Amino acid sequence: MAELSAQTQAELISVAHDLAQAAREATLAHFRSADLTADNKEVARFDPVTVADRLSEQRMREILARRRPQDAILGEEMGAQPGTSGLTWVLDPIDGTRSFLAGTPTWGVLISVADATGPLYGLIDQPYIGERFEGGFGIARMVGPQWERALQTRAARPMADCLILSTFPEVGTAEEGAAFHRLAKQCRLTRYGTDCYAYALLAAGHVDLVVEAGLQAYDVQAPIAVIEAAGGIVTDWTGAPAHQGGRVLAASSPEVHAAALAVLALA
Amino acid sequence: MAELSAQTQAELISVAHDLAQAAREATLAHFRSADLTADNKEVARFDPVTVADRLSEQRMREILARRRPQDAILGEEMGAQPGTSGLTWVLDPIDGTRSFLAGTPTWGVLISVADATGPLYGLIDQPYIGERFEGGFGIARMVGPQWERALQTRAARPMADCLILSTFPEVGTAEEGAAFHRLAKQCRLTRYGTDCYAYALLAAGHVDLVVEAGLQAYDVQAPIAVIEAAGGIVTDWTGAPAHQGGRVLAASSPEVHAAALAVLALA
Repeated sequence: MAELSAQTQAELISVAHDLAQAAREATLAHFRSADLTADNKEVARFDPVTVADRLSEQRMREILARRRPQDAILGEEMGAQPGTSGLTWVLDPIDGTRSFLAGTPTWGVLISVADATGPLYGLIDQPYIGERFEGGFGIARMVGPQWERALQTRAARPMADCLILSTFPEVGTAEEGAAFHRLAKQCRLTRYGTDCYAYALLAAGHVDLVVEAGLQAYDVQAPIAVIEAAGGIVTDWTGAPAHQGGRVLAASSPEVHAAALAVLALA
Repeated sequence: MAELSAQTQAELISVAHDLAQAAREATLAHFRSADLTADNKEVARFDPVTVADRLSEQRMREILARRRPQDAILGEEMGAQPGTSGLTWVLDPIDGTRSFLAGTPTWGVLISVADATGPLYGLIDQPYIGERFEGGFGIARMVGPQWERALQTRAARPMADCLILSTFPEVGTAEEGAAFHRLAKQCRLTRYGTDCYAYALLAAGHVDLVVEAGLQAYDVQAPIAVIEAAGGIVTDWTGAPAHQGGRVLAASSPEVHAAALAVLALA
């Protein structure tokens, strides 16, 4: 599609922040509440969906119906809705529902807008901390409880000095887990339990690698927009585009990306 | 020792909050800074100590020298200092230095005051989020970015409904790891990467169990004070006092504690 006008870009950014604010209110109404409930969407894999998850997406869809009725929507909870503009809002109302259930502050709201080529702009919002990381349309910045800063990924360094994050030590299948741990063993430090917050930390220059598997488009499109705006690279484990999800490799620099890709490709 | 007067208790609480404020400033001066450095205290085990860690403890010791010169101090970075009052301040200026290095917000400052029987009062502070959990001397409460609340652990529930947290999937030695995973497999949900924040979440009623190994006195005394004030139980893996560190089992209720103890004791 044609380049978006500055006016359209500004409108999309404004809508994204409205969505994030609505999702913040919806999620905080239930986060750390005593009556938190969770259903199992799948039997085999524990994947709780809370009242907050549904409420958060519903509130965002109400805003889009009013402000951007011409755009398509792909949301985790309520599926796909077609549009006519060539733009699609990709929404994950709560990324990290297990973290949300346990009370840890690494879940987030993921909001992005894509055309046929992939995400153009995205944001990662952590409602409880009051932190928002955004990237795209010439923007790469974060606002948090202590400061506002430009986002910039870390400079390249040897793998032995790299910090790597993933949400679960199992990562994905047994084969995917083995590939991840081959890579993690070469790194200086591995941390788990980070959910979408991992991608925000990579964009902000605090870690070098985030590696996950089994992701959906709505898990990864906002992180891709934020990280690429900050100078990083996100692909699948073969170096191909990752915006449809699956196995994701996010790296701070081309050098670290290439080195990690070489290890993951040994599978 | 004799029961402390209400005036002494109030003074100790006031000093603890002063220490926490000083540690907050010292740690935030370095958290997520580009020039973050880390030494290795041990060769075999990666244990970074940052400039912030030392600065944080130094600032706290300066306050204690002025306000409570009669008390002993046990700090992670600068060791033990004797006192004459029978009271000891137990300080961990940054619990979770790996988390601090990676930029995740689950590290914390641990401050407690103990007599010969163990911790009397303690607090867990998360400077970046701006969250403080305190317990002892009749207090059990938290103040955070979104709300202030009383602390109260969860009601007992079957192990299959329990949420369990630990900092590393390895937990400790191979034997300790095996015991942990026997227990975690019986639980509904396991999360890693939580550091001292895990104990705060347990005190606030969001999770049922925290199990760790290889802890030091300064890692556990503040959590013990906060959790016990909130109605929970902290012991070692045999049910004996845990305030000298080692293997720690923190539980929301006597029932969950007993059930977890039975599984851990199979080792």
